[in-house]
Amino acid sequence: MSKAKILLQFDTDAHPSAFDSIVAIDGGVDNLLTYHGITPHNVTELVHGAIFTRSPDDLWRTAIFVGGSDVAAAEAVLEQIRHTFFGPLRVSVMLDPGGANTTAAAAVLAALRHVPPKGATATVLGGTGPVGQRCARLLAREGATVRVCSRSIGRAEAVCSGLKSRDVDAQVSAHSTRTPQETRAALEGSQIVIAAGAAGVELLDEATRRECTDLKVAIDLNAVPPAGIAGIEVVDRAAERDGLIYYGAIGVGNTKMRIHKNALQLLFEMNDRIMDAEELFELGRGV
Amino acid sequence: MSKAKILLQFDTDAHPSAFDSIVAIDGGVDNLLTYHGITPHNVTELVHGAIFTRSPDDLWRTAIFVGGSDVAAAEAVLEQIRHTFFGPLRVSVMLDPGGANTTAAAAVLAALRHVPPKGATATVLGGTGPVGQRCARLLAREGATVRVCSRSIGRAEAVCSGLKSRDVDAQVSAHSTRTPQETRAALEGSQIVIAAGAAGVELLDEATRRECTDLKVAIDLNAVPPAGIAGIEVVDRAAERDGLIYYGAIGVGNTKMRIHKNALQLLFEMNDRIMDAEELFELGRGV
Amino acid sequence: MSKAKILLQFDTDAHPSAFDSIVAIDGGVDNLLTYHGITPHNVTELVHGAIFTRSPDDLWRTAIFVGGSDVAAAEAVLEQIRHTFFGPLRVSVMLDPGGANTTAAAAVLAALRHVPPKGATATVLGGTGPVGQRCARLLAREGATVRVCSRSIGRAEAVCSGLKSRDVDAQVSAHSTRTPQETRAALEGSQIVIAAGAAGVELLDEATRRECTDLKVAIDLNAVPPAGIAGIEVVDRAAERDGLIYYGAIGVGNTKMRIHKNALQLLFEMNDRIMDAEELFELGRGV
Repeated sequence: MSKAKILLQFDTDAHPSAFDSIVAIDGGVDNLLTYHGITPHNVTELVHGAIFTRSPDDLWRTAIFVGGSDVAAAEAVLEQIRHTFFGPLRVSVMLDPGGANTTAAAAVLAALRHVPPKGATATVLGGTGPVGQRCARLLAREGATVRVCSRSIGRAEAVCSGLKSRDVDAQVSAHSTRTPQETRAALEGSQIVIAAGAAGVELLDEATRRECTDLKVAIDLNAVPPAGIAGIEVVDRAAERDGLIYYGAIGVGNTKMRIHKNALQLLFEMNDRIMDAEELFELGRGV
Repeated sequence: MSKAKILLQFDTDAHPSAFDSIVAIDGGVDNLLTYHGITPHNVTELVHGAIFTRSPDDLWRTAIFVGGSDVAAAEAVLEQIRHTFFGPLRVSVMLDPGGANTTAAAAVLAALRHVPPKGATATVLGGTGPVGQRCARLLAREGATVRVCSRSIGRAEAVCSGLKSRDVDAQVSAHSTRTPQETRAALEGSQIVIAAGAAGVELLDEATRRECTDLKVAIDLNAVPPAGIAGIEVVDRAAERDGLIYYGAIGVGNTKMRIHKNALQLLFEMNDRIMDAEELFELGRGV
Repeated sequence: MSKAKILLQFDTDAHPSAFDSIVAIDGGVDNLLTYHGITPHNVTELVHGAIFTRSPDDLWRTAIFVGGSDVAAAEAVLEQIRHTFFGPLRVSVMLDPGGANTTAAAAVLAALRHVPPKGATATVLGGTGPVGQRCARLLAREGATVRVCSRSIGRAEAVCSGLKSRDVDAQVSAHSTRTPQETRAALEGSQIVIAAGAAGVELLDEATRRECTDLKVAIDLNAVPPAGIAGIEVVDRAAERDGLIYYGAIGVGNTKMRIHKNALQLLFEMNDRIMDAEELFELGRGV
């Protein structure tokens, strides 16, 4: 008899995400073990439990999901998990804190359906948040020129430095967007705009958007009104209006969910996958 | 394929109630997700996880149970859950902190099997505790005249004020029961007595009970000796002795458990039920 | 329909052991309820939940596992669990904090396969740790003369006092092993040596071991290099070298895991088993 598929859900928050738990169940996990308050300090013993219990031949039926609202905290946990693995004693791991990786993968895939990345310019509003950073990273990796925008130019520059330290050839630049004029300048010549800011904040108003005549696709990831980009409906999915192609949060969310569930399948096909933004993006091409 | 029935067990205590978890499993829940230390402040994100994950058409297969030893804390959590729902994005919820709702429903149903509520007088000893308050509320709603008893007349009056603020026509009055004489007076003319006090405290002694010649049914909800009403056995279930009909905690417990399990079934029939004391009482009429 | 097999995993640590959870799932438990931070103070309510929910006739389908890294804390929890049970209202309980009981049972069983206990002398290095104490207890119970070793003679004497207070006839003595000379003396005339010390510490070097010509079997329970006994490989399982029979941690681990899984089966055969070191050792004879 084949062993049960066990997923260990490591969450850095005070409660394990109910969203991640329900997707895991609907994604076919047989047994879900949830853990809250996970840190690099306390994860080692749990990883030992995951890798020392079943025989190495059965470890492909055990996997780890790392989540939580703090992307940096989740990345530090993933790093410690990698350090704890050795030889064949490892299991597959998916990293998706707050849905940042699957959301960014789905958003960038949507954009690139309409604008080929090579030679394109993409502006990411709210580009220093967890989802925004992931969008910029994926767009740059595909060869687009990426403008990382923030009300704080310092934070935007820090994100760009981080991206260049991962990939010296990344075409990224930092832009301040404290005023409509600055936002207008950051969008000059862009074919793609993705808004990944905080809930309830409009980052691009109607008048400014109309002035950006190079824009071909506009994607807003905010599920709670008002939209981050004026004129986008939450359910837009390649909707054409005003000469633009629109995606709203729910329109992107369907793809995001398919990526998440397919990734769960792949976690249980072998025992040594690490699924971060890039792997989830590649997976998304096929779904 | 039909989606798995997922129950989110929100508990206000430091550990999720094992009792509630086991009843959920035996009641047919496919996947149980348990959460401890739940407050109105931290529940919102978990409710979002419950309502944003599955499509609205599938939300009838997700439900929430709110428990814990503190009824007021659980009620505040339920209130916040209701505020978080919007439009079709909602799931059914059952409230039964410390079993107070199902226990009170079963106790009042037992009493009313023998004494019709209209025109009857019911005395609730320990009437300011979680179960006692629920008993008084259900009895008053059925049209009985209810005497809420406590060693503290102030607490009893506060409970009566609360009941009248819910239902201006409720026939309720507060009674002090610090001495056998006061208890005797509080029982004068009552056909029903329910003891819902703390474990290990006798609220009605043998001699006083014999003097209350109007009594027809006596119900004690204390599972740990001594009984709250002298002469009741924990397993009594409509037992007739001394010209009285007796119910003990286990005798009532069978009905309570059936109500609890039937309620779990109903939670998964639609996505917008709220099951508080009254709904569980109505459900109990049929089990 | 038979009721689901529910295991309540009570862990004294801040997170329930993933190891224990995975073994429980692979051992056939239908529903696993995990609890962290368990103490004698907070366990009573959870035990009530376990014994009051299902009818007494069904309680053999509910069981408790007590784990955690602190053996004394877990023993105190078990004691409180026993006190909470009454009459037929009880469920079976397995105690295996940090795997101490199953590991010690497997190690002693391995040793006694090669050396009959009566008349034998066994030296336990690292004899004051959780596994070491359990090994000494089981060896003494089988009739061996046992030498409990520690760098601290005081701690070793305390362990011996504890063993004699359990069994006045136990043949146990305390030995200091701060130097190779002391270790050599503690091994003089021993046929069995078990190393149960902390990870990463060599307790018996190659030269000293070669001088102990009475030794027949050497068992090391350290899974992380270096071995506690020089020359033992972690996968040794009755390996013969240098005229000695060797067992390493993985060699012992297979038996340990079989004992753990068989014990889980037995927990669900009746509702009144308590499985501590001795019961697990007896169980191990048959696996």
